[in-house]
Amino acid sequence: MSRQSGPTIKDVARLADVSIATVSRVINHNGYISPKTNKSVQDAIKQLGYRLPRHLRDQHQTEKRIEVILPSITNPLYAELYEYIEQRMTEENYKAFLHFDKGDEHALDDYVMDIKHGTVAGVIVSSPLKTVGTINYDNLPIITFDRYIDKIPLVKCDNLEGGKKIAEKVLSLGKKKILILSGNRQDFYPLNNRIKGMLSVFNTYNIDVETNYINFVSAPIERRIQITQAITQPKYDAICCTDDITALLVKDWTVKLGYQPLVTGFDGSSFIQNFFPDLITVRQPTEEIAKLLCDLLIEKINHPSHHFEHEYLLPVTLLD
Amino acid sequence: MSRQSGPTIKDVARLADVSIATVSRVINHNGYISPKTNKSVQDAIKQLGYRLPRHLRDQHQTEKRIEVILPSITNPLYAELYEYIEQRMTEENYKAFLHFDKGDEHALDDYVMDIKHGTVAGVIVSSPLKTVGTINYDNLPIITFDRYIDKIPLVKCDNLEGGKKIAEKVLSLGKKKILILSGNRQDFYPLNNRIKGMLSVFNTYNIDVETNYINFVSAPIERRIQITQAITQPKYDAICCTDDITALLVKDWTVKLGYQPLVTGFDGSSFIQNFFPDLITVRQPTEEIAKLLCDLLIEKINHPSHHFEHEYLLPVTLLD
Repeated sequence: MSRQSGPTIKDVARLADVSIATVSRVINHNGYISPKTNKSVQDAIKQLGYRLPRHLRDQHQTEKRIEVILPSITNPLYAELYEYIEQRMTEENYKAFLHFDKGDEHALDDYVMDIKHGTVAGVIVSSPLKTVGTINYDNLPIITFDRYIDKIPLVKCDNLEGGKKIAEKVLSLGKKKILILSGNRQDFYPLNNRIKGMLSVFNTYNIDVETNYINFVSAPIERRIQITQAITQPKYDAICCTDDITALLVKDWTVKLGYQPLVTGFDGSSFIQNFFPDLITVRQPTEEIAKLLCDLLIEKINHPSHHFEHEYLLPVTLLD
Repeated sequence: MSRQSGPTIKDVARLADVSIATVSRVINHNGYISPKTNKSVQDAIKQLGYRLPRHLRDQHQTEKRIEVILPSITNPLYAELYEYIEQRMTEENYKAFLHFDKGDEHALDDYVMDIKHGTVAGVIVSSPLKTVGTINYDNLPIITFDRYIDKIPLVKCDNLEGGKKIAEKVLSLGKKKILILSGNRQDFYPLNNRIKGMLSVFNTYNIDVETNYINFVSAPIERRIQITQAITQPKYDAICCTDDITALLVKDWTVKLGYQPLVTGFDGSSFIQNFFPDLITVRQPTEEIAKLLCDLLIEKINHPSHHFEHEYLLPVTLLD
C-alpha cells in the first residue's frame, strides 16, 4: 500500500467534523449542503492544504470560465466596463478572464486557446473577429458589446439617440459652424450611428457641418498631429467628437492654438465625470451594459435554445 | 469498436502532411519542431476543430497561468502596468489573469481558488494580503509591486528620490507655504516614502510644510469633500499630492474655489502625460517595472533556488 503524501479526504472530514460523504458532496457540488457545513468543509480544505483529485480540479475549472475580449483598458470606459463585468460574474459564481483586442484580422482562437479544448463556458466580446462562423462555435455562448458579428446577440447603448442629444445641445447653445470629428474610420460600427444621429439633427436645421476622421489606433503624438490638421483650417464654433478621449485631446489643442470652440464627447465614464465634469458628453450606462451582457450570457449558457434578440439597446443620458 | 465522434490525430497528421508522431510531439511540446511544421499542425488542429485528449488539455492549462492581483484598473497607472505585464507574459508563453485587490483582510486563496489545486505557475501582486505565510505557499513563486509582504521579492520605483525631486522643483519655483496631501493613510507603504522624500528636502530649507491625508478608497464625492476641507483653510503656495489622481481632483477644486496654488502629482502614466501634459509629476517607469516583475517571476518559476534580492528599485523621472 502506498502512503499518500498530502492530507486526505478523511483528514478533511475529521477536521470539519462531518462524514466523508458530506465532504464528497461539497467538492462535487452534488446535493444540498447547508452554508454552514459548506463553510466548515471549505475551511478544513484550506487549513489542511487538501488538493482535490485531478478530475475534480478539471471540473472546477471547466465550469467557471468566462472570456472577455475588450479594446485597451487604458480607455476608462473599458476599464470600468470590465470591473463591472468581473463583479457581476463573481456574484454569479463565474470567473472572468480579460483579453485584449488584437484587431480585425484575429479569430476567437487567437484569444482563447482553451476554447477548442472545451474549458470555456462563454465569451463576451467587443472586438472585431475574423472567423467566428468559419470554425464551429455553435455550442459556445457569445454576447457582443457594440460589435456586429454574425448573428451573435449584441448589447449597445442607443448611439443614434446619443448623437441626436449632443447635436440638439450644440444647437441650443447657438453654434452654427460645426465639425464632427470621429476617433476612427467611417465604417467603425458604433461611431457611425453617433455621427448619423448628429447629422440627422444638423441637417434638419441646415447647419454648416463637416465631418473628419482621425486614426484612433495611431500613437498619441500622431493623433495630435491629425487633430491639429483637422481643426485648424477653418475654425469652427463647435467640434463634436465621437468619444471622450478624442474630445480631451481636441480640447487640449484648441486651448494651445488659442481658440476655444465648444468641444463635446461621447461615453461619459465615471473617470470623465470625476475629472472632466465640465465636458458636455453622452453617458453610456456602463454598469447596466455590464449587467445585461453578463445576464444574457448566463441565460445563453443555461438555456441555449431560448430566443434571443439580435440587438439589445440601452438608453443614454446627456451630461451637460 | 466505438467510432470517434470528432476528428482524430490521424486526420490532423493527414491534413498537415506530417506523421502522427510529429503531431504528437507538437501537442506534447516534446522534442524539436520547426516553426513551419508547428504552424501547419496548429493550423490543421484549428481547421478540423480537433480536441486534445483530456490529460493534455489539463497540461496545457497547468503550465501557463500567471495570476496578477492589482488595485482598480480605473487608475490608469494600473491599467497600463497590466497591459505591459500581459504583453510580456504572452511573449514568454505564459497567460496572465487579472484579479482585483479586495483589501488587506484577504488572503491569496480569496483571489485564486486554483492555487490550492496546483494549476497556478506564479503570482504578481500589488495588494496587501492577510495570510501569505500562514498557508504553505513555499512552492508558489510570487513577486510584489510596491507592497511589503513577508520575504517576497519586491519591485518598486524609487519613491524616496521621486519625493525629493518634486520638493526640489517646488522650491525652485519659489513656493514657501506647502501642503503635502496623501491619497491614503500614513502607513500606506509606497506613499510613505514619497512623503519622506519631500519632507527631507523641505525640512533642510526650513520650509513651512503641513501634511494631510484623505481616504483614497472612499467614493469620489467623499474624496472631494475631504479635499475641499484639507485645502481651503489655510491657503497654500503649493499642494504636493502623493499620486496624480488626487492631484487632478485638487487641481479641479482649487480652480473652482478661486485660488490656484501649484499642484503636483506622482505616477506619470501615459494617460496623464497625454491628457494633462502640464501637470508637474514624477514618472514611474511602468514598462520597465512590468518587464522586471515578469522576468523575476519567470526566473523564480524556472530556478526557485536562485538568490533574489528583497528589493528591486527602479529610477524615476521628473516631468515638468
